[in-house]
Amino acid sequence: MISFENDYSVGAHPKVLQRLVETNNEVLPGYGNDSYCSRAAEKIKQACECPDAEVYFLEGGTQTNAVVISTMLRDFEGVVAAVTGHVSLHEAGAIEYTGHKVLQVPQHQGKIAAGELKTFLKDFYSDDSHEHMVFPGMVYISHPTEYGTLYSREELESLSQVCRQYRIPLYLDGARLGYGLTSQQTDVSLKDIAEICDVFYIGGTKVGALCGEAVVFTKKNTPKHFITMVKQHGAMLAKGRLLGVQFDALFTDDLYLEISRNAIEMADILKKVLREKNYPFYLESPTNQQFVILENEKMAELREKVVFCFWEKYDENHTVVRFATSWATTKEDIEKLSRYL
Amino acid sequence: MISFENDYSVGAHPKVLQRLVETNNEVLPGYGNDSYCSRAAEKIKQACECPDAEVYFLEGGTQTNAVVISTMLRDFEGVVAAVTGHVSLHEAGAIEYTGHKVLQVPQHQGKIAAGELKTFLKDFYSDDSHEHMVFPGMVYISHPTEYGTLYSREELESLSQVCRQYRIPLYLDGARLGYGLTSQQTDVSLKDIAEICDVFYIGGTKVGALCGEAVVFTKKNTPKHFITMVKQHGAMLAKGRLLGVQFDALFTDDLYLEISRNAIEMADILKKVLREKNYPFYLESPTNQQFVILENEKMAELREKVVFCFWEKYDENHTVVRFATSWATTKEDIEKLSRYL
Amino acid sequence: MISFENDYSVGAHPKVLQRLVETNNEVLPGYGNDSYCSRAAEKIKQACECPDAEVYFLEGGTQTNAVVISTMLRDFEGVVAAVTGHVSLHEAGAIEYTGHKVLQVPQHQGKIAAGELKTFLKDFYSDDSHEHMVFPGMVYISHPTEYGTLYSREELESLSQVCRQYRIPLYLDGARLGYGLTSQQTDVSLKDIAEICDVFYIGGTKVGALCGEAVVFTKKNTPKHFITMVKQHGAMLAKGRLLGVQFDALFTDDLYLEISRNAIEMADILKKVLREKNYPFYLESPTNQQFVILENEKMAELREKVVFCFWEKYDENHTVVRFATSWATTKEDIEKLSRYL
Amino acid sequence: MISFENDYSVGAHPKVLQRLVETNNEVLPGYGNDSYCSRAAEKIKQACECPDAEVYFLEGGTQTNAVVISTMLRDFEGVVAAVTGHVSLHEAGAIEYTGHKVLQVPQHQGKIAAGELKTFLKDFYSDDSHEHMVFPGMVYISHPTEYGTLYSREELESLSQVCRQYRIPLYLDGARLGYGLTSQQTDVSLKDIAEICDVFYIGGTKVGALCGEAVVFTKKNTPKHFITMVKQHGAMLAKGRLLGVQFDALFTDDLYLEISRNAIEMADILKKVLREKNYPFYLESPTNQQFVILENEKMAELREKVVFCFWEKYDENHTVVRFATSWATTKEDIEKLSRYL
Repeated sequence: MISFENDYSVGAHPKVLQRLVETNNEVLPGYGNDSYCSRAAEKIKQACECPDAEVYFLEGGTQTNAVVISTMLRDFEGVVAAVTGHVSLHEAGAIEYTGHKVLQVPQHQGKIAAGELKTFLKDFYSDDSHEHMVFPGMVYISHPTEYGTLYSREELESLSQVCRQYRIPLYLDGARLGYGLTSQQTDVSLKDIAEICDVFYIGGTKVGALCGEAVVFTKKNTPKHFITMVKQHGAMLAKGRLLGVQFDALFTDDLYLEISRNAIEMADILKKVLREKNYPFYLESPTNQQFVILENEKMAELREKVVFCFWEKYDENHTVVRFATSWATTKEDIEKLSRYL
Repeated sequence: MISFENDYSVGAHPKVLQRLVETNNEVLPGYGNDSYCSRAAEKIKQACECPDAEVYFLEGGTQTNAVVISTMLRDFEGVVAAVTGHVSLHEAGAIEYTGHKVLQVPQHQGKIAAGELKTFLKDFYSDDSHEHMVFPGMVYISHPTEYGTLYSREELESLSQVCRQYRIPLYLDGARLGYGLTSQQTDVSLKDIAEICDVFYIGGTKVGALCGEAVVFTKKNTPKHFITMVKQHGAMLAKGRLLGVQFDALFTDDLYLEISRNAIEMADILKKVLREKNYPFYLESPTNQQFVILENEKMAELREKVVFCFWEKYDENHTVVRFATSWATTKEDIEKLSRYL
Repeated sequence: MISFENDYSVGAHPKVLQRLVETNNEVLPGYGNDSYCSRAAEKIKQACECPDAEVYFLEGGTQTNAVVISTMLRDFEGVVAAVTGHVSLHEAGAIEYTGHKVLQVPQHQGKIAAGELKTFLKDFYSDDSHEHMVFPGMVYISHPTEYGTLYSREELESLSQVCRQYRIPLYLDGARLGYGLTSQQTDVSLKDIAEICDVFYIGGTKVGALCGEAVVFTKKNTPKHFITMVKQHGAMLAKGRLLGVQFDALFTDDLYLEISRNAIEMADILKKVLREKNYPFYLESPTNQQFVILENEKMAELREKVVFCFWEKYDENHTVVRFATSWATTKEDIEKLSRYL
Repeated sequence: MISFENDYSVGAHPKVLQRLVETNNEVLPGYGNDSYCSRAAEKIKQACECPDAEVYFLEGGTQTNAVVISTMLRDFEGVVAAVTGHVSLHEAGAIEYTGHKVLQVPQHQGKIAAGELKTFLKDFYSDDSHEHMVFPGMVYISHPTEYGTLYSREELESLSQVCRQYRIPLYLDGARLGYGLTSQQTDVSLKDIAEICDVFYIGGTKVGALCGEAVVFTKKNTPKHFITMVKQHGAMLAKGRLLGVQFDALFTDDLYLEISRNAIEMADILKKVLREKNYPFYLESPTNQQFVILENEKMAELREKVVFCFWEKYDENHTVVRFATSWATTKEDIEKLSRYL
């Protein structure tokens, strides 16, 4: 059965896996102090064109969000996020578990608007009783968002300007960053992100690694004793090489972009097929996640042959579903799907 | 200068203070193990007509909410509350500090609707990915609400029915409970509340005490080793008598209701005066908090002579303000105010 | 029955209570913004001879320890304390509840030794794996200690020197500070404490108040948005006046010292009586808590007529008990006790 | 340079790695719902001879300790552990970060004694003020301990008996469990552990996996909604297969024991060599970690050619160092080492 369920259904990209095999017998220091972690960090700094960047490797997205947000916030602060942000909804309260509130602002296809963010912050500080409220201490965005949408460079800059005005960091969750960077409808580069954001992460798990996310602090702003707090969160691997080797592979010969490009190309073909067959899109996504409205009967029929992801109920007779592509998606997969559509 | 700023601007009701004076030299056990705490608990159980009730005394509202909510929730659970609920907004993240999310539902003049609560809970459990989300583990309401409004008995019963269906407790924040019980527009008695809610608190601080709130667990459902967790929250007074003596006084000869009734009577006179002078009300409040829309100029003028509370901006030229009455408000105060209006 | 159970068995000192009565009808702002809080803070600054001091009022000792320690520590830090320190043992894990470890060092009659503290800190930093351990971020001492003992000025200075060397604050828990200041065997003044410690609190609950502790930050080092974090801990009273009025009274005409002196004088008489009757002391305490070893039979007999505090088992036939004096203890009480001994 | 630094210096055992390669292209569900996780769980249940066992896979040791301990404890409880326990010292306060205290008991070469545990628990409950203290809610032991030592079956049973008497679970940290099971000086089998302990984990990271620990709840006592709390701790991998495939390999054809046996055999040869050369042992360890006292000069000399682990200072002229063996250690490594000794 072919699967478009998500971008983490198969293992690692073969080149990533190959490097794990090749380096397996090397004797290396533990806890991220190995040469592969250093090398991967160096390559990421170069890819970001940000020599000041400080790079750390963690295992998964929720973990990374919890570690980054809780170590950057002070006790009296919360993180501002879209109501649909991953940290707001789908992390089982991981942020609150660290003692911090997620302050929700409206979303527009998964994105937050600089104007609304500014209003939120302005209103907070003009409220007489704001000393009895959670201070907005950071802004969280995802790029691509949970809906596969992308910020433009101008939108990111506007958000950043608001953050700078209020002296709070802008944090970008790049669980699927590769698919944003290689979209044909983006004007945002990795360098832009490193310039604009105070901290962000480059997702590995959903872009060809077995696990792993690379956190990049861009302004020499790594929280003091970050490593100790990573340990405290149970987020440190003894064999840190597992992350270092994978990211070293991903950032060698632009593999990270190559992987992402395949998913984008396959998504573009998929979109074309869906359009030709007149399936209505739930929203216009320029990345590897495509949201389509299916008649419930059609959905049931399709489920027999294809794995895809239930997204949400649309109305009594229709459902929004998601098709996701990845490094492993092939033209043959889409041709097969096309026959069933 | 006369004050309608809030219901905690003056000290304790004279009878409460008198009892503190009369009992001051008695030698009593510490930590709430004194006879006044027991006696006050007993009187509250009688007032609630709930012989099974278990009563504990804490110092303030935010503390009580944090202690009750965090000790009743399990780690994977959050508390459902109106977006305008005190726990959602004005407690500096005290609930999140204990590791739990406040799950927000819509509000209607401060109240939540049983139908919307049910939809929220149903949607949660029908979401395929709800295991990655915070479980709704409790429902928080305030009565009167932050807007001075009241639930009807039927509304409370509907909420309770939804809670029972989903096997989660219903918690009522009664910071201003007295003003709800003595409103002329209520059909809800203390007995009703004890029957309908799984836990609630009877506010002392805003109803004539110097400090103190009485938590009532109504279904033999006090969390195990509650006292230890009260200590852990820094919420236990060595001289617990301070709370016991006050609540003993408040629940002797219906003082709690007498205090509340004065505030309600004064609020009724105040409403009449405001109506006669054609001040528009922001909403219809049946309790001791009255919300009025003032022209900004009028507001500035009035501020010279009367203390009241800024609530929120209404439009460019108007502001919503709050006038609150208490045990200490007199007809003379309102007459004076009337002259300035 | 006469009681030497503890120093919080009766209500407030009459002069404290009287001020609560006198000020009861004044209309005052809430949340500690009233004139009594300011005035009390001012008087405490003068008593400390520390014009830079910043003073805040909280309700109880465990609460104060949790608020001060958690707001001064960073996430990767813990607080160093004696194994017998109140925060180590008798606060139901209130410090750990805020996410911080209590790092235990040896105790000598309740005190920690500068030399051992230095060794502890030195060993920590010379441990290769200290990045995987909790950083010592603060030192907690109590004065008087849980055993009624006192640090000398030299001992405090040595501790402070070690703390300064390692750039961590020294925090003094003064739940019973008055009894330390007025002991005949001390060379430590309030001014000394304000000079030597980075933060400390002046206990009210156990020295004549109904409740309340005054936190003093001495080096312009109040944590940012401290008030918001006090609220977050549920430690803010709406009627903050309750604390302000009491501390204003305690620091008017040296009432705080007067109260303490009575307890010390009574303790001195008590010691004399006990010595005359050849009761062995468990340790030599220069303050209001006296620890005596009783034969179990004698203890049982005495319990019929006097309330005192079980401390710990000494051996099969003997028990350590505590007699505590307070502002309310009279010569008559001791004479009565003397007859039963 | 040969390395005896630790048991996580090289990658995965070749058979484990091979399975990752072989299964890489399979399309599998995420979050641990794949067939390899189920199959691995099934094999572990069989290896434990415990059909009721419930098995979950997490990434690392500190994470596992934090997740297991915090989800099994209630808010008022702490975990009892040896002062040298990993959770006491080397996890950067991960347990305290979840709000729970580590209650320390004495250690004997890393082990706790049933008698002392019983005394600790008895003393707790006989303390009049235990309601103001952290309740002992669980007992943590490591096997092998941090010093490589092992409990006998009788010792484990005695600990378990005390735990059962006080109705608290016994939790065994098996980060290096394989080395315990295959030691020639043990009478404890995996079945014994599953019978005696309420929960334990089988360490993968230090026994041949790239990462991963298998948590085994043995008494149908998995905390409710455990998966949600795993997510909340940031401990859930999207590609859960990474853990499932590895443990499936480790528990196929007794690979886990084969790996462990090699380390034990190499350790035995190493011990022999060290004894022959008259190096004094710091303690007698029956597992893969050997602690030897070196003259500082010899240590410096040896460091030029061999990597080993500084353990602690012994005296001015001597140091305790650790040599660890693993699946990758060969006779040739030891022969080489032997030449340098």
